[in-house]
Amino acid sequence: MRDLARHPELLSINTATVRERWRLDEAIDGIARAGIRGIAPWRDQVAAIGLERAARMIRDAGLTVTGHCRGGMFPAGDAAQRRRIAEDNRRAVDEAAALGAQCLVLVVGGLPEGSRDLPGARAQVKDGIAELLPYAQDAGIPLAIEPLHPMYAADRSCVNTLGQANDLCAELGAGTGVAVDVYHVWWDPRIEAEIARAGEAGRLLALHVCDWLVPTRDMLLDRGMMGDGVADIRRLRGLAEAAGYDGMIEVEIFSAGNWWRRPPEEVLAVCAERFASVC
Amino acid sequence: MRDLARHPELLSINTATVRERWRLDEAIDGIARAGIRGIAPWRDQVAAIGLERAARMIRDAGLTVTGHCRGGMFPAGDAAQRRRIAEDNRRAVDEAAALGAQCLVLVVGGLPEGSRDLPGARAQVKDGIAELLPYAQDAGIPLAIEPLHPMYAADRSCVNTLGQANDLCAELGAGTGVAVDVYHVWWDPRIEAEIARAGEAGRLLALHVCDWLVPTRDMLLDRGMMGDGVADIRRLRGLAEAAGYDGMIEVEIFSAGNWWRRPPEEVLAVCAERFASVC
Repeated sequence: MRDLARHPELLSINTATVRERWRLDEAIDGIARAGIRGIAPWRDQVAAIGLERAARMIRDAGLTVTGHCRGGMFPAGDAAQRRRIAEDNRRAVDEAAALGAQCLVLVVGGLPEGSRDLPGARAQVKDGIAELLPYAQDAGIPLAIEPLHPMYAADRSCVNTLGQANDLCAELGAGTGVAVDVYHVWWDPRIEAEIARAGEAGRLLALHVCDWLVPTRDMLLDRGMMGDGVADIRRLRGLAEAAGYDGMIEVEIFSAGNWWRRPPEEVLAVCAERFASVC
Repeated sequence: MRDLARHPELLSINTATVRERWRLDEAIDGIARAGIRGIAPWRDQVAAIGLERAARMIRDAGLTVTGHCRGGMFPAGDAAQRRRIAEDNRRAVDEAAALGAQCLVLVVGGLPEGSRDLPGARAQVKDGIAELLPYAQDAGIPLAIEPLHPMYAADRSCVNTLGQANDLCAELGAGTGVAVDVYHVWWDPRIEAEIARAGEAGRLLALHVCDWLVPTRDMLLDRGMMGDGVADIRRLRGLAEAAGYDGMIEVEIFSAGNWWRRPPEEVLAVCAERFASVC
Protein backbone atom coordinates (compact mmCIF):
# COMPACT_ATOMS: atom_id res chain seq x y z
CA MET A 1 0.00 0.00 0.00
CA ARG A 2 1.35 3.38 -0.97
CA ASP A 3 2.34 5.84 1.75
CA LEU A 4 0.37 8.93 0.76
CA ALA A 5 2.30 11.15 3.18
CA ARG A 6 5.27 10.55 0.88
CA HIS A 7 3.28 10.86 -2.31
CA PRO A 8 1.41 14.17 -2.35
CA GLU A 9 1.61 14.02 -6.13
CA LEU A 10 -1.14 11.38 -6.04
CA LEU A 11 -3.77 13.87 -4.87
CA SER A 12 -6.35 15.10 -7.34
CA ILE A 13 -9.15 17.57 -6.63
CA ASN A 14 -12.61 17.24 -8.07
CA THR A 15 -13.66 20.82 -8.62
CA ALA A 16 -17.05 20.17 -7.00
CA THR A 17 -15.08 20.52 -3.76
CA VAL A 18 -14.44 24.22 -4.37
CA ARG A 19 -17.03 25.12 -6.98
CA GLU A 20 -19.14 27.44 -4.85
CA ARG A 21 -16.26 29.88 -4.54
CA TRP A 22 -14.15 29.33 -7.63
CA ARG A 23 -14.87 29.30 -11.35
CA LEU A 24 -12.88 26.66 -13.20
CA ASP A 25 -10.09 29.06 -14.22
CA GLU A 26 -9.71 30.09 -10.59
CA ALA A 27 -9.78 26.46 -9.49
CA ILE A 28 -7.05 25.50 -11.97
CA ASP A 29 -4.85 28.34 -10.72
CA GLY A 30 -5.63 27.61 -7.07
CA ILE A 31 -5.05 23.89 -7.33
CA ALA A 32 -1.75 24.37 -9.15
CA ARG A 33 -0.69 27.06 -6.66
CA ALA A 34 -1.36 24.60 -3.83
CA GLY A 35 1.09 22.19 -5.42
CA ILE A 36 -1.66 19.68 -6.22
CA ARG A 37 -1.12 17.69 -9.42
CA GLY A 38 -4.57 16.48 -10.47
CA ILE A 39 -7.99 17.89 -11.26
CA ALA A 40 -11.42 16.60 -12.26
CA PRO A 41 -13.63 19.34 -13.74
CA TRP A 42 -17.38 19.40 -14.38
CA ARG A 43 -18.96 19.99 -17.74
CA ASP A 44 -20.88 23.12 -16.80
CA GLN A 45 -17.72 24.68 -15.41
CA VAL A 46 -15.80 23.83 -18.54
CA ALA A 47 -18.56 25.32 -20.67
CA ALA A 48 -18.54 28.49 -18.58
CA ILE A 49 -14.94 29.33 -19.46
CA GLY A 50 -14.82 27.55 -22.82
CA LEU A 51 -13.44 24.10 -23.61
CA GLU A 52 -10.32 25.29 -25.40
CA ARG A 53 -9.37 27.70 -22.67
CA ALA A 54 -10.02 25.08 -19.99
CA ALA A 55 -7.90 22.52 -21.81
CA ARG A 56 -5.07 25.00 -22.37
CA MET A 57 -5.06 26.22 -18.78
CA ILE A 58 -5.04 22.68 -17.39
CA ARG A 59 -2.24 21.69 -19.77
CA ASP A 60 -0.21 24.80 -18.98
CA ALA A 61 -0.61 24.12 -15.26
CA GLY A 62 0.65 20.57 -15.83
CA LEU A 63 -2.36 19.03 -14.15
CA THR A 64 -3.51 15.46 -14.76
CA VAL A 65 -7.24 15.22 -15.47
CA THR A 66 -8.30 12.21 -13.42
CA GLY A 67 -11.81 12.27 -14.84
CA HIS A 68 -14.30 14.43 -16.65
CA CYS A 69 -17.59 14.89 -14.78
CA ARG A 70 -19.82 13.62 -16.17
CA GLY A 71 -21.70 11.66 -18.78
CA GLY A 72 -24.64 9.37 -18.24
CA MET A 73 -28.25 10.10 -17.22
CA PHE A 74 -29.40 7.53 -19.76
CA PRO A 75 -32.95 6.54 -18.77
CA ALA A 76 -35.51 8.60 -20.64
CA GLY A 77 -39.24 8.65 -21.09
CA ASP A 78 -39.21 8.62 -24.89
CA ALA A 79 -37.04 8.09 -27.94
CA ALA A 80 -36.51 11.78 -28.71
CA GLN A 81 -35.18 12.41 -25.22
CA ARG A 82 -32.97 9.33 -25.53
CA ARG A 83 -31.48 10.70 -28.73
CA ARG A 84 -30.76 14.06 -27.11
CA ILE A 85 -29.07 12.31 -24.21
CA ALA A 86 -27.00 10.13 -26.54
CA GLU A 87 -25.85 13.19 -28.47
CA ASP A 88 -25.00 15.03 -25.27
CA ASN A 89 -22.96 12.06 -24.08
CA ARG A 90 -20.94 12.09 -27.29
CA ARG A 91 -20.18 15.77 -26.61
CA ALA A 92 -19.03 14.77 -23.12
CA VAL A 93 -16.64 12.27 -24.72
CA ASP A 94 -15.34 14.98 -27.06
CA GLU A 95 -14.71 17.27 -24.12
CA ALA A 96 -12.98 14.52 -22.15
CA ALA A 97 -10.70 13.93 -25.13
CA ALA A 98 -9.95 17.64 -25.54
CA LEU A 99 -9.12 17.88 -21.83
CA GLY A 100 -6.90 14.80 -21.99
CA ALA A 101 -9.02 13.18 -19.28
CA GLN A 102 -8.15 9.70 -18.06
CA CYS A 103 -11.82 8.73 -18.22
CA LEU A 104 -15.33 10.04 -18.60
CA VAL A 105 -17.20 9.44 -15.35
CA LEU A 106 -20.70 8.08 -15.90
CA VAL A 107 -23.46 8.86 -13.42
CA VAL A 108 -26.00 6.72 -15.17
CA GLY A 109 -29.32 8.28 -14.13
CA GLY A 110 -32.32 7.05 -12.16
CA LEU A 111 -35.97 6.49 -13.00
CA PRO A 112 -37.51 8.45 -15.84
CA GLU A 113 -40.16 10.96 -14.68
CA GLY A 114 -43.26 9.15 -13.49
CA SER A 115 -41.72 5.68 -13.74
CA ARG A 116 -41.35 2.98 -11.09
CA ASP A 117 -39.67 0.56 -13.48
CA LEU A 118 -36.21 0.15 -12.01
CA PRO A 119 -35.28 -2.95 -14.04
CA GLY A 120 -36.37 -1.03 -17.14
CA ALA A 121 -34.19 1.96 -16.20
CA ARG A 122 -31.27 -0.39 -15.68
CA ALA A 123 -31.81 -1.90 -19.11
CA GLN A 124 -31.79 1.60 -20.61
CA VAL A 125 -28.50 2.31 -18.87
CA LYS A 126 -26.92 -0.76 -20.38
CA ASP A 127 -28.22 0.10 -23.84
CA GLY A 128 -27.12 3.71 -23.47
CA ILE A 129 -23.56 2.81 -22.52
CA ALA A 130 -23.40 0.20 -25.27
CA GLU A 131 -24.43 2.84 -27.80
CA LEU A 132 -21.86 5.36 -26.53
CA LEU A 133 -19.01 2.89 -26.20
CA PRO A 134 -17.72 2.73 -29.81
CA TYR A 135 -17.64 6.53 -29.97
CA ALA A 136 -15.72 6.69 -26.70
CA GLN A 137 -13.29 4.01 -27.85
CA ASP A 138 -12.60 5.87 -31.06
CA ALA A 139 -11.83 8.93 -28.96
CA GLY A 140 -9.62 6.91 -26.61
CA ILE A 141 -11.77 7.76 -23.59
CA PRO A 142 -12.54 4.94 -21.11
CA LEU A 143 -16.04 5.07 -19.66
CA ALA A 144 -15.94 4.88 -15.86
CA ILE A 145 -19.25 3.65 -14.48
CA GLU A 146 -19.64 5.10 -11.00
CA PRO A 147 -22.04 3.22 -8.75
CA LEU A 148 -23.89 5.73 -6.58
CA HIS A 149 -25.20 5.12 -3.08
CA PRO A 150 -28.60 3.36 -3.07
CA MET A 151 -30.22 6.51 -1.65
CA TYR A 152 -29.79 8.00 -5.15
CA ALA A 153 -31.43 5.08 -6.97
CA ALA A 154 -34.56 7.04 -7.89
CA ASP A 155 -33.13 10.31 -9.04
CA ARG A 156 -29.44 10.03 -9.91
CA SER A 157 -28.23 6.52 -10.53
CA CYS A 158 -29.87 3.14 -10.73
CA VAL A 159 -26.42 1.55 -10.63
CA ASN A 160 -26.00 1.28 -6.88
CA THR A 161 -23.36 -1.31 -6.17
CA LEU A 162 -19.91 -2.05 -7.50
CA GLY A 163 -21.18 -5.54 -8.24
CA GLN A 164 -23.74 -4.09 -10.61
CA ALA A 165 -21.11 -1.87 -12.27
CA ASN A 166 -18.80 -4.87 -12.63
CA ASP A 167 -21.61 -6.88 -14.20
CA LEU A 168 -22.19 -4.07 -16.71
CA CYS A 169 -18.51 -3.92 -17.58
CA ALA A 170 -18.39 -7.69 -18.00
CA GLU A 171 -21.28 -7.50 -20.46
CA LEU A 172 -20.10 -4.40 -22.31
CA GLY A 173 -16.42 -5.26 -22.53
CA ALA A 174 -13.35 -3.25 -23.45
CA GLY A 175 -13.53 0.48 -22.99
CA THR A 176 -15.62 0.29 -19.82
CA GLY A 177 -14.48 0.36 -16.21
CA VAL A 178 -15.52 1.63 -12.81
CA ALA A 179 -15.02 4.66 -10.63
CA VAL A 180 -15.02 3.66 -6.97
CA ASP A 181 -16.14 6.44 -4.63
CA VAL A 182 -15.75 5.65 -0.96
CA TYR A 183 -18.86 7.68 -0.13
CA HIS A 184 -21.03 5.49 -2.31
CA VAL A 185 -19.63 2.07 -1.52
CA TRP A 186 -18.29 2.12 2.05
CA TRP A 187 -21.37 0.31 3.42
CA ASP A 188 -21.35 -2.54 0.88
CA PRO A 189 -20.85 -5.97 2.46
CA ARG A 190 -19.56 -7.25 -0.88
CA ILE A 191 -17.09 -4.45 -1.49
CA GLU A 192 -13.97 -6.52 -0.85
CA ALA A 193 -14.87 -9.17 -3.43
CA GLU A 194 -16.09 -6.62 -5.97
CA ILE A 195 -13.01 -4.40 -5.75
CA ALA A 196 -10.88 -7.49 -6.27
CA ARG A 197 -13.03 -8.48 -9.23
CA ALA A 198 -12.72 -5.00 -10.78
CA GLY A 199 -8.99 -5.05 -10.26
CA GLU A 200 -8.49 -8.47 -11.78
CA ALA A 201 -10.31 -7.34 -14.89
CA GLY A 202 -8.23 -4.15 -15.09
CA ARG A 203 -11.32 -2.02 -14.60
CA LEU A 204 -10.37 0.26 -11.71
CA LEU A 205 -10.30 3.61 -13.50
CA ALA A 206 -10.73 6.04 -10.62
CA LEU A 207 -10.79 6.23 -6.84
CA HIS A 208 -12.73 9.03 -5.16
CA VAL A 209 -12.65 9.87 -1.48
CA CYS A 210 -14.58 11.89 1.06
CA ASP A 211 -16.31 10.75 4.25
CA TRP A 212 -19.73 9.67 5.55
CA LEU A 213 -20.86 11.96 8.36
CA VAL A 214 -23.01 10.86 11.30
CA PRO A 215 -25.53 12.33 11.24
CA THR A 216 -25.81 13.11 7.54
CA ARG A 217 -28.11 16.13 7.38
CA ASP A 218 -28.66 16.31 3.65
CA MET A 219 -28.69 13.40 1.22
CA LEU A 220 -26.76 15.28 -1.45
CA LEU A 221 -24.80 18.13 0.04
CA ASP A 222 -23.51 16.93 3.40
CA ARG A 223 -20.47 14.88 2.59
CA GLY A 224 -17.55 15.00 4.95
CA MET A 225 -13.85 15.75 4.80
CA MET A 226 -11.77 12.60 5.08
CA GLY A 227 -11.40 11.76 8.75
CA ASP A 228 -14.53 13.57 9.90
CA GLY A 229 -16.84 10.60 9.34
CA VAL A 230 -17.02 6.85 9.73
CA ALA A 231 -15.93 5.47 6.36
CA ASP A 232 -12.80 3.35 6.62
CA ILE A 233 -11.12 5.11 3.71
CA ARG A 234 -7.73 3.54 4.22
CA ARG A 235 -9.13 0.02 4.20
CA LEU A 236 -10.96 0.68 0.94
CA ARG A 237 -7.90 2.28 -0.66
CA GLY A 238 -5.89 -0.70 0.50
CA LEU A 239 -8.33 -3.05 -1.19
CA ALA A 240 -8.11 -1.03 -4.41
CA GLU A 241 -4.32 -0.96 -4.35
CA ALA A 242 -4.12 -4.65 -3.53
CA ALA A 243 -6.28 -5.14 -6.61
CA GLY A 244 -3.78 -3.19 -8.71
CA TYR A 245 -5.00 0.38 -8.56
CA ASP A 246 -2.04 2.71 -9.00
CA GLY A 247 -3.69 5.93 -10.13
CA MET A 248 -4.29 9.22 -8.40
CA ILE A 249 -6.87 9.64 -5.65
CA GLU A 250 -9.54 12.24 -6.19
CA VAL A 251 -11.15 14.23 -3.40
CA GLU A 252 -14.76 15.12 -4.12
CA ILE A 253 -16.76 16.82 -1.36
CA PHE A 254 -20.28 18.20 -1.72
CA SER A 255 -20.72 20.22 1.44
CA ALA A 256 -23.14 23.12 1.32
CA GLY A 257 -23.10 23.67 5.06
CA ASN A 258 -19.38 23.52 5.74
CA TRP A 259 -16.58 23.18 3.19
CA TRP A 260 -18.29 25.11 0.42
CA ARG A 261 -18.50 28.10 2.75
CA ARG A 262 -14.81 28.20 3.54
CA PRO A 263 -12.03 29.90 1.57
CA PRO A 264 -11.01 27.42 -1.14
CA GLU A 265 -7.33 27.81 -0.26
CA GLU A 266 -8.13 26.55 3.23
CA VAL A 267 -10.21 23.66 1.85
CA LEU A 268 -7.36 22.56 -0.41
CA ALA A 269 -4.88 22.75 2.47
CA VAL A 270 -7.12 20.56 4.64
CA CYS A 271 -7.63 18.14 1.73
CA ALA A 272 -3.88 17.78 1.32
CA GLU A 273 -3.32 17.33 5.05
CA ARG A 274 -6.07 14.72 5.42
CA PHE A 275 -4.95 12.99 2.24
CA ALA A 276 -1.59 12.43 3.88
CA SER A 277 -2.83 11.60 7.39
CA VAL A 278 -6.19 9.85 6.92
CA CYS A 279 -6.47 8.32 3.46
CA MET B 1 -50.70 -13.21 -6.34
CA ARG B 2 -53.34 -12.32 -3.79
CA ASP B 3 -55.89 -9.64 -4.63
CA LEU B 4 -55.58 -7.31 -1.65
CA ALA B 5 -58.75 -5.45 -2.55
CA ARG B 6 -60.55 -8.66 -1.66
CA HIS B 7 -58.43 -9.38 1.39
CA PRO B 8 -58.49 -6.40 3.73
CA GLU B 9 -57.88 -8.84 6.56
CA LEU B 10 -54.26 -9.09 5.39
CA LEU B 11 -53.49 -5.51 6.44
CA SER B 12 -51.46 -4.92 9.58
CA ILE B 13 -50.45 -1.55 11.01
CA ASN B 14 -47.09 -0.90 12.57
CA THR B 15 -47.88 1.55 15.33
CA ALA B 16 -45.00 3.80 14.31
CA THR B 17 -47.41 4.97 11.61
CA VAL B 18 -49.70 6.61 14.17
CA ARG B 19 -47.47 6.92 17.21
CA GLU B 20 -47.23 10.69 17.33
CA ARG B 21 -50.95 10.99 18.03
CA TRP B 22 -51.91 7.72 19.74
CA ARG B 23 -50.59 5.85 22.74
CA LEU B 24 -50.63 2.09 22.25
CA ASP B 25 -54.00 1.60 23.96
CA GLU B 26 -55.50 4.22 21.68
CA ALA B 27 -53.85 2.63 18.67
CA ILE B 28 -55.21 -0.81 19.54
CA ASP B 29 -58.71 0.63 19.85
CA GLY B 30 -58.37 2.73 16.73
CA ILE B 31 -56.96 -0.06 14.59
CA ALA B 32 -59.67 -2.49 15.70
CA ARG B 33 -62.34 0.17 15.18
CA ALA B 34 -61.07 0.65 11.61
CA GLY B 35 -61.65 -3.04 10.97
CA ILE B 36 -57.94 -3.71 10.59
CA ARG B 37 -56.80 -7.14 11.80
CA GLY B 38 -53.08 -6.81 12.53
CA ILE B 39 -50.74 -4.68 14.61
CA ALA B 40 -47.02 -4.38 15.25
CA PRO B 41 -46.23 -2.45 18.42
CA TRP B 42 -42.98 -0.90 19.64
CA ARG B 43 -41.33 -1.77 22.92
CA ASP B 44 -41.43 1.71 24.41
CA GLN B 45 -45.14 1.95 23.67
CA VAL B 46 -45.77 -1.42 25.28
CA ALA B 47 -43.78 -0.37 28.34
CA ALA B 48 -45.75 2.86 28.56
CA ILE B 49 -49.06 1.06 29.11
CA GLY B 50 -47.66 -2.11 30.65
CA LEU B 51 -46.97 -5.44 28.96
CA GLU B 52 -49.87 -7.32 30.50
CA ARG B 53 -52.36 -4.66 29.63
CA ALA B 54 -51.03 -4.38 26.09
CA ALA B 55 -51.21 -8.14 25.60
CA ARG B 56 -54.73 -8.31 27.01
CA MET B 57 -56.01 -5.42 24.92
CA ILE B 58 -54.53 -6.83 21.73
CA ARG B 59 -55.95 -10.26 22.50
CA ASP B 60 -59.36 -8.85 23.33
CA ALA B 61 -59.38 -6.86 20.12
CA GLY B 62 -58.58 -10.05 18.21
CA LEU B 63 -55.54 -8.50 16.51
CA THR B 64 -52.69 -10.54 15.07
CA VAL B 65 -49.27 -9.26 16.16
CA THR B 66 -47.26 -9.40 12.95
CA GLY B 67 -44.06 -8.46 14.74
CA HIS B 68 -42.68 -6.93 17.90
CA CYS B 69 -40.46 -3.88 17.31
CA ARG B 70 -37.70 -4.42 18.06
CA GLY B 71 -34.64 -6.25 19.28
CA GLY B 72 -31.11 -5.90 18.01
CA MET B 73 -28.61 -3.04 18.32
CA PHE B 74 -25.88 -5.61 18.98
CA PRO B 75 -22.56 -3.86 18.26
CA ALA B 76 -21.08 -2.41 21.41
CA GLY B 77 -17.87 -0.80 22.47
CA ASP B 78 -17.17 -3.08 25.42
CA ALA B 79 -18.19 -6.33 27.09
CA ALA B 80 -20.32 -4.73 29.81
CA GLN B 81 -22.41 -2.93 27.21
CA ARG B 82 -22.68 -6.13 25.21
CA ARG B 83 -24.05 -7.93 28.27
CA ARG B 84 -26.64 -5.22 28.88
CA ILE B 85 -27.72 -5.43 25.25
CA ALA B 86 -27.97 -9.22 25.38
CA GLU B 87 -30.11 -9.02 28.50
CA ASP B 88 -32.33 -6.38 26.94
CA ASN B 89 -32.80 -8.56 23.87
CA ARG B 90 -33.95 -11.45 26.04
CA ARG B 91 -36.55 -9.12 27.56
CA ALA B 92 -37.67 -8.24 24.03
CA VAL B 93 -38.15 -11.95 23.33
CA ASP B 94 -40.19 -12.29 26.55
CA GLU B 95 -42.39 -9.40 25.50
CA ALA B 96 -42.85 -10.82 22.01
CA ALA B 97 -43.95 -14.11 23.57
CA ALA B 98 -46.35 -12.39 25.97
CA LEU B 99 -47.85 -10.45 23.06
CA GLY B 100 -48.16 -13.58 20.93
CA ALA B 101 -46.06 -11.92 18.23
CA GLN B 102 -45.28 -13.82 15.05
CA CYS B 103 -41.66 -12.69 15.28
CA LEU B 104 -39.26 -10.34 16.99
CA VAL B 105 -37.97 -7.86 14.43
CA LEU B 106 -34.23 -7.28 14.70
CA VAL B 107 -32.74 -3.94 13.73
CA VAL B 108 -29.21 -5.06 14.28
CA GLY B 109 -27.35 -1.81 15.00
CA GLY B 110 -24.56 0.08 13.29
CA LEU B 111 -21.04 1.06 14.26
CA PRO B 112 -20.19 1.37 17.95
CA GLU B 113 -19.41 4.94 19.02
CA GLY B 114 -16.10 6.06 17.56
CA SER B 115 -15.63 2.96 15.42
CA ARG B 116 -15.08 2.68 11.67
CA ASP B 117 -14.87 -1.11 11.77
CA LEU B 118 -17.86 -2.21 9.75
CA PRO B 119 -16.73 -5.83 9.32
CA GLY B 120 -16.21 -5.94 13.08
CA ALA B 121 -19.71 -4.58 13.74
CA ARG B 122 -21.11 -7.20 11.39
CA ALA B 123 -19.27 -9.93 13.26
CA GLN B 124 -20.75 -8.64 16.53
CA VAL B 125 -24.21 -8.81 14.99
CA LYS B 126 -23.74 -12.41 14.05
CA ASP B 127 -22.43 -13.29 17.49
CA GLY B 128 -25.25 -11.36 19.17
CA ILE B 129 -27.98 -13.13 17.24
CA ALA B 130 -26.30 -16.48 17.79
CA GLU B 131 -26.29 -15.83 21.53
CA LEU B 132 -29.95 -14.77 21.58
CA LEU B 133 -31.19 -17.54 19.35
CA PRO B 134 -31.55 -20.46 21.83
CA TYR B 135 -33.48 -18.20 24.20
CA ALA B 136 -35.79 -17.10 21.40
CA GLN B 137 -36.29 -20.66 20.24
CA ASP B 138 -37.23 -21.77 23.74
CA ALA B 139 -39.78 -18.98 23.78
CA GLY B 140 -41.08 -19.95 20.34
CA ILE B 141 -40.23 -16.54 18.89
CA PRO B 142 -38.62 -16.44 15.42
CA LEU B 143 -35.99 -13.75 14.98
CA ALA B 144 -36.68 -11.64 11.89
CA ILE B 145 -33.51 -9.95 10.68
CA GLU B 146 -34.54 -6.77 8.90
CA PRO B 147 -31.99 -5.39 6.45
CA LEU B 148 -32.06 -1.61 6.60
CA HIS B 149 -31.30 0.76 3.74
CA PRO B 150 -27.54 1.36 3.30
CA MET B 151 -27.99 4.98 4.38
CA TYR B 152 -28.45 3.62 7.92
CA ALA B 153 -25.28 1.51 7.90
CA ALA B 154 -23.45 3.76 10.35
CA ASP B 155 -26.08 4.42 12.96
CA ARG B 156 -28.89 1.87 12.78
CA SER B 157 -28.07 -1.32 10.95
CA CYS B 158 -24.96 -2.74 9.39
CA VAL B 159 -27.10 -5.40 7.72
CA ASN B 160 -28.00 -3.53 4.57
CA THR B 161 -29.10 -6.05 1.97
CA LEU B 162 -31.39 -9.02 1.94
CA GLY B 163 -28.44 -11.03 0.67
CA GLN B 164 -26.58 -10.26 3.86
CA ALA B 165 -29.60 -11.17 6.00
CA ASN B 166 -30.00 -14.42 4.06
CA ASP B 167 -26.32 -15.21 4.61
CA LEU B 168 -26.76 -14.66 8.34
CA CYS B 169 -29.80 -16.93 8.44
CA ALA B 170 -27.95 -19.60 6.50
CA GLU B 171 -25.15 -19.51 9.05
CA LEU B 172 -27.36 -19.26 12.14
CA GLY B 173 -30.00 -21.76 11.10
CA ALA B 174 -33.44 -22.59 12.48
CA GLY B 175 -35.23 -19.86 14.38
CA THR B 176 -33.94 -17.05 12.18
CA GLY B 177 -35.60 -15.43 9.20
CA VAL B 178 -35.97 -12.09 7.49
CA ALA B 179 -38.30 -9.12 7.51
CA VAL B 180 -38.47 -7.56 4.05
CA ASP B 181 -39.34 -3.87 4.08
CA VAL B 182 -39.95 -2.37 0.67
CA TYR B 183 -38.48 0.95 1.80
CA HIS B 184 -35.15 -0.64 2.60
CA VAL B 185 -34.77 -3.01 -0.33
CA TRP B 186 -36.59 -1.53 -3.33
CA TRP B 187 -33.34 -0.31 -4.91
CA ASP B 188 -31.46 -3.62 -4.62
CA PRO B 189 -30.47 -5.08 -8.01
CA ARG B 190 -30.31 -8.52 -6.40
CA ILE B 191 -33.69 -8.36 -4.69
CA GLU B 192 -35.42 -10.82 -7.00
CA ALA B 193 -32.87 -13.57 -6.40
CA GLU B 194 -32.64 -12.89 -2.67
CA ILE B 195 -36.40 -12.90 -2.07
CA ALA B 196 -36.56 -16.21 -3.92
CA ARG B 197 -33.70 -17.52 -1.80
CA ALA B 198 -35.41 -16.42 1.43
CA GLY B 199 -38.66 -18.02 0.31
CA GLU B 200 -37.07 -21.32 -0.62
CA ALA B 201 -35.52 -21.56 2.80
CA GLY B 202 -38.84 -20.71 4.48
CA ARG B 203 -37.38 -17.55 5.94
CA LEU B 204 -39.86 -14.86 4.87
CA LEU B 205 -41.26 -13.86 8.26
CA ALA B 206 -42.62 -10.39 7.54
CA LEU B 207 -43.36 -8.00 4.70
CA HIS B 208 -43.42 -4.25 5.42
CA VAL B 209 -44.59 -1.56 3.02
CA CYS B 210 -44.42 2.18 2.61
CA ASP B 211 -42.97 4.23 -0.26
CA TRP B 212 -39.78 6.03 -1.29
CA LEU B 213 -40.46 9.70 -1.90
CA VAL B 214 -38.63 11.84 -4.47
CA PRO B 215 -37.22 13.98 -3.07
CA THR B 216 -36.70 12.41 0.35
CA ARG B 217 -36.23 15.37 2.68
CA ASP B 218 -35.17 13.53 5.80
CA MET B 219 -33.25 10.28 5.97
CA LEU B 220 -35.33 8.88 8.82
CA LEU B 221 -38.71 10.59 9.00
CA ASP B 222 -39.79 11.21 5.42
CA ARG B 223 -41.21 7.90 4.28
CA GLY B 224 -44.17 7.94 1.97
CA MET B 225 -47.65 6.47 1.86
CA MET B 226 -47.90 3.62 -0.63
CA GLY B 227 -48.48 5.11 -4.06
CA ASP B 228 -46.92 8.49 -3.31
CA GLY B 229 -43.39 7.45 -4.21
CA VAL B 230 -41.43 5.41 -6.73
CA ALA B 231 -41.05 1.98 -5.12
CA ASP B 232 -42.69 -0.75 -7.16
CA ILE B 233 -44.47 -2.22 -4.15
CA ARG B 234 -46.65 -4.60 -6.10
CA ARG B 235 -43.69 -6.11 -7.92
CA LEU B 236 -41.90 -6.74 -4.65
CA ARG B 237 -44.98 -8.21 -3.00
CA GLY B 238 -45.42 -10.40 -6.07
CA LEU B 239 -41.87 -11.66 -5.70
CA ALA B 240 -42.47 -12.43 -2.02
CA GLU B 241 -45.72 -14.25 -2.71
CA ALA B 242 -44.21 -16.17 -5.61
CA ALA B 243 -41.58 -17.25 -3.09
CA GLY B 244 -44.27 -18.51 -0.75
CA TYR B 245 -45.05 -15.57 1.50
CA ASP B 246 -48.64 -15.86 2.69
CA GLY B 247 -48.64 -13.68 5.80
CA MET B 248 -50.08 -10.27 6.53
CA ILE B 249 -48.61 -7.09 5.10
CA GLU B 250 -47.55 -4.46 7.56
CA VAL B 251 -47.69 -0.73 6.85
CA GLU B 252 -44.93 1.20 8.61
CA ILE B 253 -44.60 4.91 7.82
CA PHE B 254 -42.24 7.32 9.58
CA SER B 255 -43.45 10.69 8.39
CA ALA B 256 -42.83 13.65 10.67
CA GLY B 257 -43.81 16.22 8.06
CA ASN B 258 -47.02 14.68 6.77
CA TRP B 259 -48.76 11.54 8.04
CA TRP B 260 -47.76 11.96 11.68
CA ARG B 261 -49.49 15.34 11.68
CA ARG B 262 -52.82 14.03 10.46
CA PRO B 263 -55.67 12.52 12.50
CA PRO B 264 -54.80 8.84 12.94
CA GLU B 265 -58.28 7.76 11.82
CA GLU B 266 -57.60 9.47 8.49
CA VAL B 267 -54.15 7.87 8.24
CA LEU B 268 -55.60 4.39 8.81
CA ALA B 269 -58.30 4.99 6.22
CA VAL B 270 -55.73 6.03 3.63
CA CYS B 271 -53.54 3.03 4.56
CA ALA B 272 -56.48 0.68 3.98
CA GLU B 273 -57.40 2.34 0.68
CA ARG B 274 -53.83 2.31 -0.66
CA PHE B 275 -53.34 -1.22 0.60
CA ALA B 276 -56.22 -2.28 -1.64
CA SER B 277 -55.40 -0.10 -4.65
CA VAL B 278 -51.60 0.23 -4.72
CA CYS B 279 -49.96 -2.67 -2.90
